[in-house]
Formats: sequence, C-alpha cells, structure tokens
Amino acid sequence: MNTVELITRKRDGGELTREELHYLVQGFTEGSIPDYQMSAFLMAVYYQGMNRDETVWLTQEMKESGDIADLSKVRGIKIDKHSTGGVGDKTTLIVGPLAAACGVPVAKMSGRGLGFTGGTVDKLEAIPGFKTTLPEEEFFELVNNSGIAVIGQTAHIAPADKKIYALRDVTATVENLSLITSSIMSKKLASGSDGILLDVKCGSGAFMKSEEDARRLAEMMVEIGKADGKKMMAVITDMNQPLGNAVGNALEVREAIEVLQGKGPSDITELSVELAGRMIWLGGCAATPAEGVAKAGQALTSGSGLQKFREFVSGQGGDPAVADDLSLLPLSSCSKEILADRSGYICGIDAMTIGLASQHTGAGRQTKEDAIDHGAGILLHHKAGDRVEAGEALMTLYSDEVSKLESASLEAAKAVQIGDQAPELPNLIHGVVE
Amino acid sequence: MNTVELITRKRDGGELTREELHYLVQGFTEGSIPDYQMSAFLMAVYYQGMNRDETVWLTQEMKESGDIADLSKVRGIKIDKHSTGGVGDKTTLIVGPLAAACGVPVAKMSGRGLGFTGGTVDKLEAIPGFKTTLPEEEFFELVNNSGIAVIGQTAHIAPADKKIYALRDVTATVENLSLITSSIMSKKLASGSDGILLDVKCGSGAFMKSEEDARRLAEMMVEIGKADGKKMMAVITDMNQPLGNAVGNALEVREAIEVLQGKGPSDITELSVELAGRMIWLGGCAATPAEGVAKAGQALTSGSGLQKFREFVSGQGGDPAVADDLSLLPLSSCSKEILADRSGYICGIDAMTIGLASQHTGAGRQTKEDAIDHGAGILLHHKAGDRVEAGEALMTLYSDEVSKLESASLEAAKAVQIGDQAPELPNLIHGVVE
Repeated sequence: MNTVELITRKRDGGELTREELHYLVQGFTEGSIPDYQMSAFLMAVYYQGMNRDETVWLTQEMKESGDIADLSKVRGIKIDKHSTGGVGDKTTLIVGPLAAACGVPVAKMSGRGLGFTGGTVDKLEAIPGFKTTLPEEEFFELVNNSGIAVIGQTAHIAPADKKIYALRDVTATVENLSLITSSIMSKKLASGSDGILLDVKCGSGAFMKSEEDARRLAEMMVEIGKADGKKMMAVITDMNQPLGNAVGNALEVREAIEVLQGKGPSDITELSVELAGRMIWLGGCAATPAEGVAKAGQALTSGSGLQKFREFVSGQGGDPAVADDLSLLPLSSCSKEILADRSGYICGIDAMTIGLASQHTGAGRQTKEDAIDHGAGILLHHKAGDRVEAGEALMTLYSDEVSKLESASLEAAKAVQIGDQAPELPNLIHGVVE
Repeated sequence: MNTVELITRKRDGGELTREELHYLVQGFTEGSIPDYQMSAFLMAVYYQGMNRDETVWLTQEMKESGDIADLSKVRGIKIDKHSTGGVGDKTTLIVGPLAAACGVPVAKMSGRGLGFTGGTVDKLEAIPGFKTTLPEEEFFELVNNSGIAVIGQTAHIAPADKKIYALRDVTATVENLSLITSSIMSKKLASGSDGILLDVKCGSGAFMKSEEDARRLAEMMVEIGKADGKKMMAVITDMNQPLGNAVGNALEVREAIEVLQGKGPSDITELSVELAGRMIWLGGCAATPAEGVAKAGQALTSGSGLQKFREFVSGQGGDPAVADDLSLLPLSSCSKEILADRSGYICGIDAMTIGLASQHTGAGRQTKEDAIDHGAGILLHHKAGDRVEAGEALMTLYSDEVSKLESASLEAAKAVQIGDQAPELPNLIHGVVE
C-alpha cells in the first residue's frame, strides 16, 4: 500500500477501505508511517470528512492498536460513563455510587486530567488515604463485593489514539467529527464495558459550542458504539456555566458528597440523578430510563448512594469519615473573594474563563509533569439567574500560593456578567440520543 | 508567533503576513518548526490557496533562505531561461548558443535531473571532455569572453525549497499553484539573472495538463518575477508529444547540434528560435520580440549559433569537433526498433509514456544516487500526423543493458496510437504571457 496514494485519495474526497485505514493506523503507531504524512492525512480528513463506515473502521483500528480490557471477572452488565468534558463536572463521583447502589457494577478505569482540574483519579486522590493504583484482581474483587471501584488507567489502551491526538493538537486538526469520535470511542470501546452512557456537553464551556454540533457528535458516537455491539445512550447537557458551584479537586469531592447528602446545588444534583438513572437502565436494573431515574432519586434520598460512597472510599483505602466530615478534605491555605462590582442579576458565568482561572490556582496541570494542588480551585457562591448586591461575594478562590491567587482572581472576575434583567436560563438537558 | 495559530488561520481561509511566512519558512528550514506542522500547513494551503501577496512573500522568503548568486561580474543583461519540464526538451542547448550569438550573455547554473532524462548538466556531460564544474571566476571569464557558460548548481540556492519540495512530494501537496510557483521562482530569483524567460509546458506530457492551468501558472510566475524587479516573459508551449525526435542525453545533444546545423526536426527548431528570439529581446539586443526572433533565425541559418556552440563546448573543455561529427557522441551498444503494427496516421505519441520508457533504458535517474547512461534513450522516427505503413520502424531504443531494452520497449510501444484519419495537431506555441 502507498501512503501518498491514500493521502491523495482522501484529499480528493475519496473513501478508504478498512484495510487501508488499518495500514495507516498501524503504520503510524509502529512508526513506519512518519508523522508528517499522518498530519497531511489528518488535514485532508479535516476538509473532506469521513463517512460512517470509515469512522467505524478508524475507531476499531485505533481500539485494536493496544490492549482491550477484560472485565469478564466482574459479574453483571458493566456500564461505563463518559463526559466530553466541562468545568466543574464531578458527576462520576456521584453517578458511580448512585448506580452501584442500584445494582449496576461500576468498574471504571479513569484517566488523569490535563486541563482545568485533574481527572476523576486526581479528584479521588484528594481524599486522604485513597489509592487509585490496585492490582487487577483486587480491583475486580472490590467491584464484585461492594459494586464500585475506580482506578487509574494503567493498561496500554488505544496507543494509536494517544499518538494521533498528540499530533492533531499541534497541527490544527482537532475539530473534525470523525476524528473526535474515533478518539473518544476507541478508548471507550477498549475499556471492556458492556455499555456506555455518554454525557455530551454543549455551550461556551464545552468543546462543542452549538447544540447542533453536540447532537451530531452524540449521534455518531452512539452509532459507532452500537456497531461494536455496545449498549449506548448519549445525553446532551448544558455547559454554558460551570456545573455546580465547585471547580477544583478536593472542592469537587466536597460538593459530590454534599450532593449525595441531599444538600448539593440543584443543577449538579439533577444532572447526576438523570445520568445515574440512565446508567441503571442501560445496566438492566430498570425497565425504562424513567424508572432508572426514579431509582437513582431514591438512592439519593434514602442515603444508600452516600453509603455506597463510604464503601467505595473505604474499599480503596480512603477515610470514609469524609462522607460525614468535609473538613477532613484538604483546602488550600490562601483564599480570596471576588466581590460584585454592581447590583443586578448574574446573566452568565463563562465556564471556560472559570476553568482557566481554576487551572491557574494550581488545581489543574498545564503539562503532564505538573503536580496538582488538591486543595486549590474556585467555589462559586452564585450562579446565572441569581440576584446579587454590589459588594457581595461572587466566588472564593483557593490556592497554596498567594501569587497564583492574585492572577487567577483577576482572570476569574472577568467570567461573571451582571445585568439588569434576570436572564433566561437554558435547560440543563438539551436532549437524548439512543 | 504560534505555528498552530498560523496553520489554523490558513485552514480557515485566512491570510498570512510576510512576517508570519518568514517565521514559517525560516523555522522549517532551520528545524525549529517540525515537518509534521509544515505538512499540515501545506495541506491547508492546498485547499485554501494563497493570494497574490502571500505567494510573492512565500517566494521571497524561500529565495532568501539561502545564497543569492552574484552575477555582477558578468557584463550585460543576463537572461535566464526555465522550462517547467517536458520530454525531449533540449532547447537550452540550442537557445543558449543562439542567444549568445546575438549578444545576450548566457551565464547559466543548471541542475541535474531526476526523471525521464538527466538535466541540462547531465546532457552536456555526454560531450567528451565537457566539464560542468568550474571555479566561479573562470565561469564569469568564459561568459565575458565567449558569451556563454553553463555549470552545475553548486551554490546553496533556496534550501527552503529543497526541504519543502521533498515534504510536498510525500504528502500529496504538490499540485497547488502558489506552491508550484514559489518552488520554481524562489530558485530562479536566487540565480542572479536580470530577467527570466519561462517555457511553460502544457499537455499530457507536462505537469499542467490544460492550457488554462498552464496560463494561470505562467501569469503567476511572471507576476512574482516582476514583483522582484526581473524582466519577465512566459511562453506557453505544447507538450502532448515529445519535443523533437530524441529523448536521452547524448541523443538530445546530437539533435541539438542538428538543429544548430539547420537539419533538426521542425518542432524543436521552431520552438528554439521563438524562445531564443524572446531571450534576445528581454536581453535588450532587439527592439521587439519579433525582431529578436528574426535575429535568432539568422543566427541559425548563418551558422553563428553553431559556431557559438563550438566555442561553448571548447571553453568548458569539451571536444568542439562534436559539432561537425556526431559519431563522437556516445551511443549505447544495444538497440531495438519498435515497428508499426498497422498502417495509418500517427494520432498521438504519449510524452509521459515515452519519458518513462526512456528513463527505464537508463537515460534517467530514479534516485539521486543513480548513474546515468549517457548513450541511452529513444529516437523517434515519426511524430504525430505522420503517415506510416505496417512494419515500418516507429522508434529505436538504446541501452547498455538488453534487459532494460526489453521492458522499456514494451512500455514505449504503448505510447503510439495509429488511426485512419490524420489528426489535427495543436499549435506548438499556445500563447505568451508578459
């Protein structure tokens, strides 16, 4: 096979066969196809796109470039949950225990974050004693016994995606539906679950700005998953302002516990119950999605979700007392409040700006080597639609370094718009694709 | 400056400034911008194109990436000639002596070829004793004394083009007008001449298949040259069948001498006089292009062109007797005739097929390291429009290796179409751009 010929065909709007995509993905992963040919190919895909079959094949080839996790030792229907990423999105910490409390085994291998905050694994490590590295056998045993375990991704999952994504990031070829789909889904399909619930964010703080783009991505991912034999559902949710009030690592664990205590902010509570309900349905523990949502709601009000959280933390070596005493969680030593400079209604809180400010407090990494300040981040005291008075605290920033606090607060202050009229707020859930 | 931002801007149809193109060209040439980013940028240019200013700047930046030849020690107005490349194109060997005979100093630094036959330098080296490597001072002295010298390109001319072209070749980003223009013109503008006559080939044997594409390329190159202060003219000429009858190295030198003797094929004779005439006009040795063409014609019929050829060969250490005794030129030991399989009119001789067959006789290189068989190639006995009888020889192939002759002749035989009707032949000159 000739690489230049394949680039030329895609460049001119042609289609590639599965064998040809295999040749490209394998060759690039192994190093026989140089990165400069792959980047030209990716740019051609950026312009010409890929059809449904090509996207399925590309995803499959990327999935098969590494190990496929074997979760067969975990009993029951394993449902994975994936969010396309947003600011303040700590739903996994809530949805996992709720779904597990309703009988869905949660065996999650999660990544570390590069961005606004850490990933789920980083957040969990904010809990004193919590271990995210466990031998495989112990991981399976935990899930079989207490219904939930979350560990860091150690397996050699989809190396092709890692290599292709790194290249896309520096060659302006990120924003293509087929490439985004294959990147997300190759890892998810390799993670060994029986089904996947996708939380596709849309809005100013999300990768997909418009509902239309988010829907197209959701539809394609659901289709790719089904083509691989997975049970699939996608929920399109709003990310115009941060989700909940907390952005950070320990701050987000704290908020997740508050939600499980029934005392959390309404948006994150509502979304967590909606997502958990659909996981419960996908996992075969409810006859309809609505029944799943009702069960998730009961797990919240009855406290069985919080109890499952205690077992989860305790199972992985953490102190379960955090579920009842939030002061056991770390909090950075320095803080700074941002005050409203006028009275009025909060019209919007730009999620992206808050995310970047949070990263700059020390809550997120800029490079893979950066350490995370678990106690750093931002706590919002008001959300869009709230009435505030001049001088009232809008948010508090936390950091271990005063200098970081200064620059991050200048940044964060720009995120909040205050106007005279109460804004019309978008629905939290824009739609469902299944 | 941020490379990803520049790729993104071009990807989205935006324009780059001169400073930004400088950053890209210099960074890539020096190695600070990796090839995978350059190839993504080139693919974006393939789709989005470049406007006139961007093309001028890109060409200038590529020109300035290396040495600029200094021909100031050569007296008079120096006119370079460049052909976009065709099969059997030995016009430089004829046009140079004709122009020099009419007073235009020809100080040419020429390349070696990678393709159907060698380049001009390879062809000249087929002449016994001819040296194409001379000290700069001797080169200038030769031009000042006898009016013409041609040496191999030794200077570090436009290294950015070399590097960018190598990348385009393997990333399917060759076919873009701005990139083609900048590649050709960056080298030409760095070659130190006061003016450039371009021979832009069009047809099945040329890079530009249609007259429209050839004209667009010609117009852009003329504009880029003028923007650099050069006297410019482009002639768009036919390349649907090989030019003249000879394809090879010594075979082409032989034919060039025959033309200068007034005994050459009509097409190459006519084109050489037309091109030389325009060089004479550009060089200020004729008041109009028509007067230049008339002078070139006189140089041919009077024998002053042939005499200049003798001086040229002799000046560079070659045996001037070749101009009168063609048997002094090498000819490969094995030959094979291809016979007409039917009677009729030759409707076409595919130049590309003949070119490849010639390369396979040993007349051309496939890699830079290949040696050239100076005596190899193809001699056509008939051209399009000729009446032939079944069994008559259409062409003779020459090679030092019988095995090469066998495969090349199978290939070459496919190039000739014989039909019942005499074909309508295209004009040799399609147009002029100035």
